[in-house]
Amino acid sequence: MSFTLVPVGRVESVLKQRREAPRQGVEGAPAAWVIVEEAYAEAVEGLAAGDEVILLTWLHESNREQQKVRPRNNPAAPLTGVFATRSPDRPNPIGLHRCRVLAVAGARLTVSGLEAVDGTPVVDVKIALGDVGDR
Amino acid sequence: MSFTLVPVGRVESVLKQRREAPRQGVEGAPAAWVIVEEAYAEAVEGLAAGDEVILLTWLHESNREQQKVRPRNNPAAPLTGVFATRSPDRPNPIGLHRCRVLAVAGARLTVSGLEAVDGTPVVDVKIALGDVGDR
Repeated sequence: MSFTLVPVGRVESVLKQRREAPRQGVEGAPAAWVIVEEAYAEAVEGLAAGDEVILLTWLHESNREQQKVRPRNNPAAPLTGVFATRSPDRPNPIGLHRCRVLAVAGARLTVSGLEAVDGTPVVDVKIALGDVGDR
Repeated sequence: MSFTLVPVGRVESVLKQRREAPRQGVEGAPAAWVIVEEAYAEAVEGLAAGDEVILLTWLHESNREQQKVRPRNNPAAPLTGVFATRSPDRPNPIGLHRCRVLAVAGARLTVSGLEAVDGTPVVDVKIALGDVGDR
């Protein structure tokens, strides 16, 4: 059994490589863009500048076989199961990014605080409602 | 182009149908369990009682073709693009659930505040680090 994700858009950013990506959006990720595919333009209607959104991306450079990793900022720590970390290396490499919409122009969103590299596929956009959980 | 998700576990809950699910975990979802598949047991190591986690699920009952919906608690409102909502009906029906681990027994997690129905496939578990964004 498996499930099929379709890309609904992609990230445009000046960040070109994974090692350039800041560890936290708040650490100063530059403005970036989410280019939603024309086929999903209707799904964007209602998003507006000022909205906080949670982007789900597909971390296509990840290693999906690795189940344990060393914590990123503590190389001396023991290996830890990836579900107890936020490593991009995990069985289903879905990235979660909370960012703010700065502008909406058709299906092109300008966002702040997005740490994903240029070309990263976007698989979902969810308005943020205070907490992370779905309603 | 598309991406393949593999289920890494499933939800066990007394909630048997989607309409029974509370709108917010905090509204009193009963305790539930995340049964991680044996093949991913190593990925759980390091999770402990008290941890907050973000579960990603596959909302298998969703309508993936619907791009606009009426807001759930305001049927008089105009149709809105699903990316501006948290509707389960969306192109890639990934559910986000923030919940607390109450107990860990091997690959079986007892969690509180999970509003997913029994049998919902789980595709990722991420430790929550204050904010939703990945590090």
